[in-house]
Amino acid sequence: MNQPLKFPIDQFAPEQGDALENFDANVLRQLFEDEHPADLAAQFSEFDPPQIAEIFSRLSPECCADVLRYLDYENRREITGKLDNEMLSRVISEMTSDDRVDLLHSIPDERSETLLHLLAKKEREDIRRLSSYQEGTAGAIMTSEYATLSPDLTARQAIDRLRLEAPDKETIYYAYVIDGKRRLLGLVSLRELILAHPAARIKDIMRKDLVCVHAHDDQEEVARQMTKYDLLAIPVINGGDALVGIVTFDDVQDVIEQEATEDFHRLGSISQGSGTDTLVGIGLRDAGPWLLIRKRLPWLLALVFMNIFSGAGIAYYEDTIQATVALVFFLPLLIGSSGNAGAQSATLMVRALALGEVIGKDWLRMMGKEIGIALCIGACMAIAVSFIGVFRGGPDVAVIVSVAMVAVVLFGSLLGLSLPFLLIRLKMDPATASAPLVTSMADIGGVVIYFGIATWYLGLQAAI
Amino acid sequence: MNQPLKFPIDQFAPEQGDALENFDANVLRQLFEDEHPADLAAQFSEFDPPQIAEIFSRLSPECCADVLRYLDYENRREITGKLDNEMLSRVISEMTSDDRVDLLHSIPDERSETLLHLLAKKEREDIRRLSSYQEGTAGAIMTSEYATLSPDLTARQAIDRLRLEAPDKETIYYAYVIDGKRRLLGLVSLRELILAHPAARIKDIMRKDLVCVHAHDDQEEVARQMTKYDLLAIPVINGGDALVGIVTFDDVQDVIEQEATEDFHRLGSISQGSGTDTLVGIGLRDAGPWLLIRKRLPWLLALVFMNIFSGAGIAYYEDTIQATVALVFFLPLLIGSSGNAGAQSATLMVRALALGEVIGKDWLRMMGKEIGIALCIGACMAIAVSFIGVFRGGPDVAVIVSVAMVAVVLFGSLLGLSLPFLLIRLKMDPATASAPLVTSMADIGGVVIYFGIATWYLGLQAAI
Repeated sequence: MNQPLKFPIDQFAPEQGDALENFDANVLRQLFEDEHPADLAAQFSEFDPPQIAEIFSRLSPECCADVLRYLDYENRREITGKLDNEMLSRVISEMTSDDRVDLLHSIPDERSETLLHLLAKKEREDIRRLSSYQEGTAGAIMTSEYATLSPDLTARQAIDRLRLEAPDKETIYYAYVIDGKRRLLGLVSLRELILAHPAARIKDIMRKDLVCVHAHDDQEEVARQMTKYDLLAIPVINGGDALVGIVTFDDVQDVIEQEATEDFHRLGSISQGSGTDTLVGIGLRDAGPWLLIRKRLPWLLALVFMNIFSGAGIAYYEDTIQATVALVFFLPLLIGSSGNAGAQSATLMVRALALGEVIGKDWLRMMGKEIGIALCIGACMAIAVSFIGVFRGGPDVAVIVSVAMVAVVLFGSLLGLSLPFLLIRLKMDPATASAPLVTSMADIGGVVIYFGIATWYLGLQAAI
Repeated sequence: MNQPLKFPIDQFAPEQGDALENFDANVLRQLFEDEHPADLAAQFSEFDPPQIAEIFSRLSPECCADVLRYLDYENRREITGKLDNEMLSRVISEMTSDDRVDLLHSIPDERSETLLHLLAKKEREDIRRLSSYQEGTAGAIMTSEYATLSPDLTARQAIDRLRLEAPDKETIYYAYVIDGKRRLLGLVSLRELILAHPAARIKDIMRKDLVCVHAHDDQEEVARQMTKYDLLAIPVINGGDALVGIVTFDDVQDVIEQEATEDFHRLGSISQGSGTDTLVGIGLRDAGPWLLIRKRLPWLLALVFMNIFSGAGIAYYEDTIQATVALVFFLPLLIGSSGNAGAQSATLMVRALALGEVIGKDWLRMMGKEIGIALCIGACMAIAVSFIGVFRGGPDVAVIVSVAMVAVVLFGSLLGLSLPFLLIRLKMDPATASAPLVTSMADIGGVVIYFGIATWYLGLQAAI
């Protein structure tokens, strides 16, 4: 029995399992190449990378190329590390232009130079051109496999032309009309071509008012335009209005997901990074502990230093605390409520700003509404807490705690609402107004407000 | 001058502004109907609904239908309220079937009955059928305007057929092959039809291993399948395997955005709801204060009652506090750090679970890694805090605070990591493990751990 590697074969159909164990290339190809590459990738991601590399070396380059694009960054990096240069260059040839660039990013520079030389000159130049765009821009996610038409063709000629080109293009559902200098003149959809009179000229049926983006535009902007206009693909032009690529809907779905993850992480005060120093795309399960520590520690340490101020606030009111220790019982409750109310408004605001539901100049309007809401919420919470106050600390403590509750909820809410706007003013990402940051700032305010009210009220009582 | 309503016309081109002020139907149509409905909707959303209704009554029903689908829920509800039944029913006829159902949801039941009777019987039945599916399911977001083919057609016949049907269908890029009982047999893309030999039979070129969803499947499942396989559209079948609709990529992009917003809000402990009792889709700027209070208060009150336990914890250690008041200075710092570390791990975990990067059975593996990470992070924070401890409270307090810091960070992190998994076990949404919930739970643990360590250590010192 030839059984050099142990596969977790129980998730495969029995005949697939046997083929895997025997590494029979013919059977492997027959079994696997009919499956959807997304399914294969999901099954393979349970294997060790050397095992996948072993299987890959027996599959066709097309199939490998299809599966690779569905694997995550870490798996992809390890598998490409195991494949030999010749196989890998054949796999790269089979990929679409944007996937190629992505893959080469995960390969060490020296090796990717070697690989580039194994590719055809045209492919090599295309990759060099696409890799020249900065990460996170339209240029970096676009593909150069799109269909173009000249404006003088007839609809029938255009369809014949697309039929010839279809196998090499990512989408033929939109065809871009360009002049001799590749300047973008218009767009026809395959649907329009099919509906048009066969003899109609492209220039007469094409749409001229196009939505397009520049190669240096941020990928978020690309996603926004495509979602806004429900586009399957968007053309990318350079400074001279020449068409340089298109971004397709599937790439943009990945962008939307990534950006949401980044905002999500920021809200939990997890630092962001770029390139290989980012959690997005690696997947939490496979992220190394050092990466996670690097992402989490900076904010936690910063928050420690912020919390020193709460300590200083308490120290300032030491006499009040010595006199009425029962006040300390309610400290976590009050600063907690202030922080929670703040975390809520910050969360609402960060998401609304990210979706464009609210813009910078709405601050005053939102502020007015928030004051009313926070007073209302604070009053309800004050009533709830006053009963506990009477029970645990007597009527004086109950009054102090109730009044302080309204004040701290108001403070926390307005802080959570304003911080994202302030960050926009400072040209920072509003999502940096994370729940932990708002909570820590609300803590400081909560301590001062609570003990301030207590000192004042108890002083007043003593004076009577 | 006829100028009954004041428009914020400065954002329009001058000739559009004039046409608006004079309500000249011909000019309005000419000017507006060439623009992309998404742009018109963006411009109109700055107007008052009565003004938009006034303009709508002068535009063609097609144009109104196109613009309406890009307006948000609130604007749509108010505008439809101002349009007369005849105009509105004509607008509804022009919409795609999924948009119709959406629109009718925003109209009071009585009126929507009247409107249904103004529609053609076929349209009426179609709407009734689509509205019978529960919100949030595949059935509720699918459209019934898809192209079907019979398996015995040739590729050429199929293209001719699609050409005839194109104007009425949402997409003709995928055509579904069905038998006499509407059972789904396969799928051909327009690309494949164009590439195929004109005389080839559909049944020979169609793809048979289809990805499809059931009408009662959750819309999140639909989004997951479509993103996984990069599909433009996915077929929806009923219990008897009959094709009942398709979901297109633009509808699924909205679903992805909505679900991300819901998770985001949950993480900030903002309650969710459904139908009209939800913040998603209304937009924060236009959400009424009562809706916001209803969404925010329940969790805040629940957290108040949780925080009572922290208070009880402190009361239990009253003697320790009386003896060393300096311990209170570090209370916000320690419970804050515990909460922040917990909020971080919960955020990472919730997002990873939502994206499927981590699944339920990975708990133990993640737990092992988290212990190492949390000890490391806790140690760094302990070193930072020990200096402040010596300075503000002397060496004893410094030792207590440092040891407690490692313990509370570990506690908070493991809590934040485990809670989402526990919620999955309880068949609840893991995103309910919001930052405020984790923070409040970590507070309780933090108080007990901190004062517990202090009491033990000070007792030990006293005994020496």
